[in-house]
Amino acid sequence: MATAVEALAMQRAIELAARGLGSTSPNPVVGCVILDADGETAGEGWHQRAGGPHAEVHALRAAGERARGGTAVVTLEPCNHTGRTGPCAQALIGAGVARVVYAVADPTPTATGGAATLRAAGIDVEGGLLADAAARGNEAWLTATPRQRPFVTWKYAATLDGRSAAADGTSRWITAAPARAEVHRLRAESDAVLVGSGTLRADDPQLAVRGIDGDITQPLRVVVDTEATITPDARVLDSAAPTLLAVAEDADTDHLKADVVRLPRAADGRGLDVLALLGALYQRDVRSVLLEGGPTLAGAFLAAGAVDKVIGYLAPALLGAGPAALADAGIPTIEQALRLDVTDLQPVGPDLRITAYPAHPSSSALRARPCESAEEN
Amino acid sequence: MATAVEALAMQRAIELAARGLGSTSPNPVVGCVILDADGETAGEGWHQRAGGPHAEVHALRAAGERARGGTAVVTLEPCNHTGRTGPCAQALIGAGVARVVYAVADPTPTATGGAATLRAAGIDVEGGLLADAAARGNEAWLTATPRQRPFVTWKYAATLDGRSAAADGTSRWITAAPARAEVHRLRAESDAVLVGSGTLRADDPQLAVRGIDGDITQPLRVVVDTEATITPDARVLDSAAPTLLAVAEDADTDHLKADVVRLPRAADGRGLDVLALLGALYQRDVRSVLLEGGPTLAGAFLAAGAVDKVIGYLAPALLGAGPAALADAGIPTIEQALRLDVTDLQPVGPDLRITAYPAHPSSSALRARPCESAEEN
Ligand SMILES: NC(=O)c1ccc[n+]([C@@H]2O[C@H](COP(=O)([O-])OP(=O)(O)OC[C@H]3O[C@@H](n4cnc5c(N)ncnc54)[C@H](OP(=O)(O)O)[C@@H]3O)[C@@H](O)[C@H]2O)c1
Ligand SMILES: NC(=O)c1ccc[n+]([C@@H]2O[C@H](COP(=O)([O-])OP(=O)(O)OC[C@H]3O[C@@H](n4cnc5c(N)ncnc54)[C@H](OP(=O)(O)O)[C@@H]3O)[C@@H](O)[C@H]2O)c1
Repeated sequence: MATAVEALAMQRAIELAARGLGSTSPNPVVGCVILDADGETAGEGWHQRAGGPHAEVHALRAAGERARGGTAVVTLEPCNHTGRTGPCAQALIGAGVARVVYAVADPTPTATGGAATLRAAGIDVEGGLLADAAARGNEAWLTATPRQRPFVTWKYAATLDGRSAAADGTSRWITAAPARAEVHRLRAESDAVLVGSGTLRADDPQLAVRGIDGDITQPLRVVVDTEATITPDARVLDSAAPTLLAVAEDADTDHLKADVVRLPRAADGRGLDVLALLGALYQRDVRSVLLEGGPTLAGAFLAAGAVDKVIGYLAPALLGAGPAALADAGIPTIEQALRLDVTDLQPVGPDLRITAYPAHPSSSALRARPCESAEEN
Repeated sequence: MATAVEALAMQRAIELAARGLGSTSPNPVVGCVILDADGETAGEGWHQRAGGPHAEVHALRAAGERARGGTAVVTLEPCNHTGRTGPCAQALIGAGVARVVYAVADPTPTATGGAATLRAAGIDVEGGLLADAAARGNEAWLTATPRQRPFVTWKYAATLDGRSAAADGTSRWITAAPARAEVHRLRAESDAVLVGSGTLRADDPQLAVRGIDGDITQPLRVVVDTEATITPDARVLDSAAPTLLAVAEDADTDHLKADVVRLPRAADGRGLDVLALLGALYQRDVRSVLLEGGPTLAGAFLAAGAVDKVIGYLAPALLGAGPAALADAGIPTIEQALRLDVTDLQPVGPDLRITAYPAHPSSSALRARPCESAEEN
């Protein structure tokens, strides 16, 4: 049984892991706390970026000799294989820790087996501590890896009557500054930010992360623009962050210097094939996508079953007219409404943030999905 | 200074007062607790229906001789005039109470002065205890009386994307059973329930209160049906509750036996004049209206500044198509969005209830409005 001190350390490790969100893909986020033999915190670490040291290595370095006889508390089962960095199981053995407590088992075939290796070296190993919370903190990677497509969070802002803009198209600002600041945090924690060509034309958004302190990784900005209608002066093409244009196979992109991915059109002829787009992003190491709209593209993603999480900012206001926050998602009748499980409701300034997951079975992938692929560590 | 015992008694009196909601109009709801000389509860009462005894009289009867030397804790300043029942100030003096604590001063010119009368009789009088909570409990009456129009609560149910029905018009059930049960409670607490002819034709609603235990007063069912298109077999015309049809002055109602009020058309030609409708309801002793839709009529009420409170039931679901919860409210641009002050957020089964008040100045009428009219007690 894990001790209360270990549970607190795991809580801390989960917080540390979250610092890596948006910069570790295609790897998971991982946090680690080393407790010395007296149960005092001796070192902390988290996986900061793909190719860099793993969380355990950072934490062991910080702990130094105090790790000997102590306990390593890690959000993910320590890896067993030599990728870009050495296996963490060996590092822990070498440092002389007496016990390893982890939250979630590593599902990747090449990395798995760390617990067994540690046990074989005589280390006391326990898994499952705060597993649900740790899995939630790693939801993008744990979902994306077995599915071979990124975890998609659809973020929207709307009034209480579901409008995302007024009748004349104005939408600045539906939500207040605190909600808008949070969106920059969400972007920073995502590998890619995605909008459709309609939003591009209506808002000319920059989509970069602004106003966040600390060491952030700009997400890949992705514009889904079937006919490559974007003009070279679009703000999304500035140098603030990398940008990828998703266009049709036959689109004319001669006027553009941007990075382009050519994709098949959707079967119904409305834009590009959503799953092909997500597959292409996965190939580019994108594990988490923040879908920022607009309503048409969000509808297509929902219709394709390609939304894994919904974050809605509801402004305490009514409009009575203007575009809806969500357009056609292929739902004809009330029985087929896409039901959500709301996991969090939070006031954000004057607005309300609703966090929810589609209630259909595929949303439980997080907990029970077997692993089908290895990651390049 | 009021004591803690008196504050608890006031809390209880506010709860007792609420039992009268929906059956006391044109009177306020009032609750009263009599504490004996030792501070023990000796009697409780509330105003149950217009024409019946006031709260103080009920409570004094329950307390009997124990009222002598005790304290009366009342949500509203005891009345000073002889309406259908005798003045409460005299009843309290006659019962020999030593002290009276009330929450909200009576704003009606004929009833006011109760505190002064009591003081003149040597009773210790204190006002203002839990005044905000008591005023909130009496918000319909306190708002309606000075304005000479009923307090209007717009209730709606919608998905997170603001749809009140699916693309094919189906809307049963957007919200789950607990929210639907609450709506029956809201109806029971209202003097009138109101829908437009569109909802009448789409849903053929009965609009009566069902499934609520205890002694409830059915609200007046009001259908706003400019051309009197309603057919005699409409469920709203059954005998479960009284019904009023609001029609245009020239509407042909020969085919109907129902109670009819004839009203001028709206200046913009879209249906009936909303304020004339509310004036007519006020004349019929209606002080609180539950506006149950649909989206067109709600938009007209909002445009007329005639919505005092909003209760939204948000279902954790997405539709992406179907009618919006709110139609044109005359708001062209984002700066003119109707901003709301959200006062309560509550899960109701799987759904979310949002309670809010329009943030424009007239919504503060509750606190500061002078009184312009007397009530028939
Ligand atoms: N409140 C919010 O949260 C929010 C967020 C974003 C945008 N908005 C508002 O939404 C409005 C724009 O809405 P919108 O619906 O026109 O824009 P959108 O959803 O951003 O873009 C829609 C366009 O994306 C392209 N597309 C490519 N593949 C697609 C596919 N598989 N399915 C659907 N579309 C695909 C289509 O055009 P092509 O095929 O021709 O490229 C389509 O017309 C703006 O007013 C903006 O302000 C609001
Ligand atoms: N989810 C919810 O909370 C909820 C609640 C209620 C209804 N609904 C849905 O809403 C739909 C019906 O919507 P609706 O908008 O057609 O119905 P509605 O708002 O109930 O009725 C609109 C009609 O009311 C009449 N009216 C009279 N005076 C008016 C005025 N001053 N302003 C506006 N209208 C006035 C007009 O017709 P005339 O002038 O010809 O009489 C108008 O067409 C149904 O599908 C129903 O299921 C949903």
